[in-house]
Amino acid sequence: MIDAISFKNGTFRYLDQRYLPLQELHVETRDHREAIEAIKTLAVRGAPLIGASAGYTVVLGVNSFKGSKEEFPAYFGQLIKDVEASRPTAVNLFFATKKMKAVYDANFEGDSLETLKTKMTDEAHKIYNDEVDNCDRIARHGVEQIKRDCADILKTRKLNVLTHCNTGTLACCGIGTALGVIRLAWQEGLIERVITAESRPLLQGLRLTAWELEHDGIPFISISDSSSAFLMQRGMIDFGVVGADRITANGDTANKIGTYAHAVSANHHGIPFYIAAPVSTIDITLKEGAQIPIEERNADELRTIFGTQVATPTTPVLNYAFDVTPGTLLRGIITEKKAVVGNYETGLREICS
Amino acid sequence: MIDAISFKNGTFRYLDQRYLPLQELHVETRDHREAIEAIKTLAVRGAPLIGASAGYTVVLGVNSFKGSKEEFPAYFGQLIKDVEASRPTAVNLFFATKKMKAVYDANFEGDSLETLKTKMTDEAHKIYNDEVDNCDRIARHGVEQIKRDCADILKTRKLNVLTHCNTGTLACCGIGTALGVIRLAWQEGLIERVITAESRPLLQGLRLTAWELEHDGIPFISISDSSSAFLMQRGMIDFGVVGADRITANGDTANKIGTYAHAVSANHHGIPFYIAAPVSTIDITLKEGAQIPIEERNADELRTIFGTQVATPTTPVLNYAFDVTPGTLLRGIITEKKAVVGNYETGLREICS
Repeated sequence: MIDAISFKNGTFRYLDQRYLPLQELHVETRDHREAIEAIKTLAVRGAPLIGASAGYTVVLGVNSFKGSKEEFPAYFGQLIKDVEASRPTAVNLFFATKKMKAVYDANFEGDSLETLKTKMTDEAHKIYNDEVDNCDRIARHGVEQIKRDCADILKTRKLNVLTHCNTGTLACCGIGTALGVIRLAWQEGLIERVITAESRPLLQGLRLTAWELEHDGIPFISISDSSSAFLMQRGMIDFGVVGADRITANGDTANKIGTYAHAVSANHHGIPFYIAAPVSTIDITLKEGAQIPIEERNADELRTIFGTQVATPTTPVLNYAFDVTPGTLLRGIITEKKAVVGNYETGLREICS
Repeated sequence: MIDAISFKNGTFRYLDQRYLPLQELHVETRDHREAIEAIKTLAVRGAPLIGASAGYTVVLGVNSFKGSKEEFPAYFGQLIKDVEASRPTAVNLFFATKKMKAVYDANFEGDSLETLKTKMTDEAHKIYNDEVDNCDRIARHGVEQIKRDCADILKTRKLNVLTHCNTGTLACCGIGTALGVIRLAWQEGLIERVITAESRPLLQGLRLTAWELEHDGIPFISISDSSSAFLMQRGMIDFGVVGADRITANGDTANKIGTYAHAVSANHHGIPFYIAAPVSTIDITLKEGAQIPIEERNADELRTIFGTQVATPTTPVLNYAFDVTPGTLLRGIITEKKAVVGNYETGLREICS
């Protein structure tokens, strides 16, 4: 199993993802300021992994507190603020700090600082373990759905699956969301080969997903993003599964730019295309994808690659970070509670209530 | 006008495209061996431009011949061989050397070497000028077709056009094929903005097409290839036009990888998508696209970018250089003879006969 983050004997250990896949550098720290820096600099990335790292970072901060119990509330308040400032747009980060604050609120009065530290460590482990459990459940529901949808093909051969960006251990804790589905399907002998789209501009597919698959010994091949349609034309892709950044009530899904193009091509070729994501990704308050704000990121993400300039600094670039795939193009949305297929309005509301 | 190649007073001048867009380096030479090296090393690239450069390279070789008339045939035979060895898969190169040989065959007996040199120079200019004329005619037919197809939109606003790879002066001599259509449409006030897909792996869209558009002052924006579908969803693209490497009798078209994905998305959104290419690109002997051999290029084109390694050297990569777009997804195939729409079987056979 890839050790993306872990916490043992008061030490937080993380894999610095900035150097992947060329170098596997694990860093250990007992200093919460170093852990905050790791989140800030994208050494640790991926929404669920950021959440779990934030929990452990709070524990590091609490453990290093040497003052009196009276001094603790001010210290703790500042610590939470510092952690939350590391990646201010990461929802999972606030989800984690909220849980850590809840432990503080419930126990500070009655407990000694030592007991409080232990309870906070337990809570941070719980945040991590919940993510791991969610991935396992998503994988199970995904594999069952794929077995049903691809039953005819599976009578004669294994499946070739397309994925995009990175949704594995490096992003999600545990086995991952979409990549978790693929891992379990591989373990059950359903997968011939994984096709991982490189995911421009930041190449998470070529760099991170490829690295995870190589680590696990799962056969795969990387392609440029715009090749997926041609591979589908040639019968080289049987289904696609990707993650999600936000899902609206009607099943419209915001995910890494490029997802929509894959989904349109899959639809054109009659290939099932799935979203695999935890229930926490569903924003039931939004009616449809058009309401999701789409982040435009820095043009230099395309103009430079790993510090190498490929276009002039003045080349105008439109760099949407995400796109929106209508629920109508999806064969199913796979969550830890169930795989929702058919009527998303009803199905998603049911699992969110 | 961009000066991609030119020939004046016995000197061949070329723009070294390897340094674009970061540096505009023009090189002058009277040495045919240097010109061959420029073709070999991709300093000069693009099928029609290679053809025209090959013609001028033969002239350089002939001009530097200092021997007797008796010695010339052996020298000329070796010269042609050397030029043809520079890019052995480039059809246009052999098209050019064949024309230069024809001038030799027809005139060697009766002419002095000096007269022969003049006739060869004239022939090389003719090869170049024919390419320029073809581009002008393609552009004219393209603009007329687009005016018809987009008449409703043009009543209220200008058009946003998607293109892929580089099909401009840098590849084609003159104004280019697909980019020639865009240039003329811009001159006629039909274009709001060009969207140029970066064209992984070698980024000709981001590097070369962007550079040409900036040079001409045509408003444009570069995107990652996988963004085009999302821009179509948002109503930001009104039509697409790209070049071709080979067109079969039924209109199926091989072109730079990524073309098919754009065409599928255009079709999904009801957006007209065109091929612009000279008649010489049509291979009427092939019935359909499945008969076109598709080149797989070196995996390092994806694993390294401008010499910077982004993936491990062992990452498995599938790097198709081209894909095939079925004629059924095309609104029209625009050639120097006419824009073929509707029944490609009939229309293409007509212009090839």
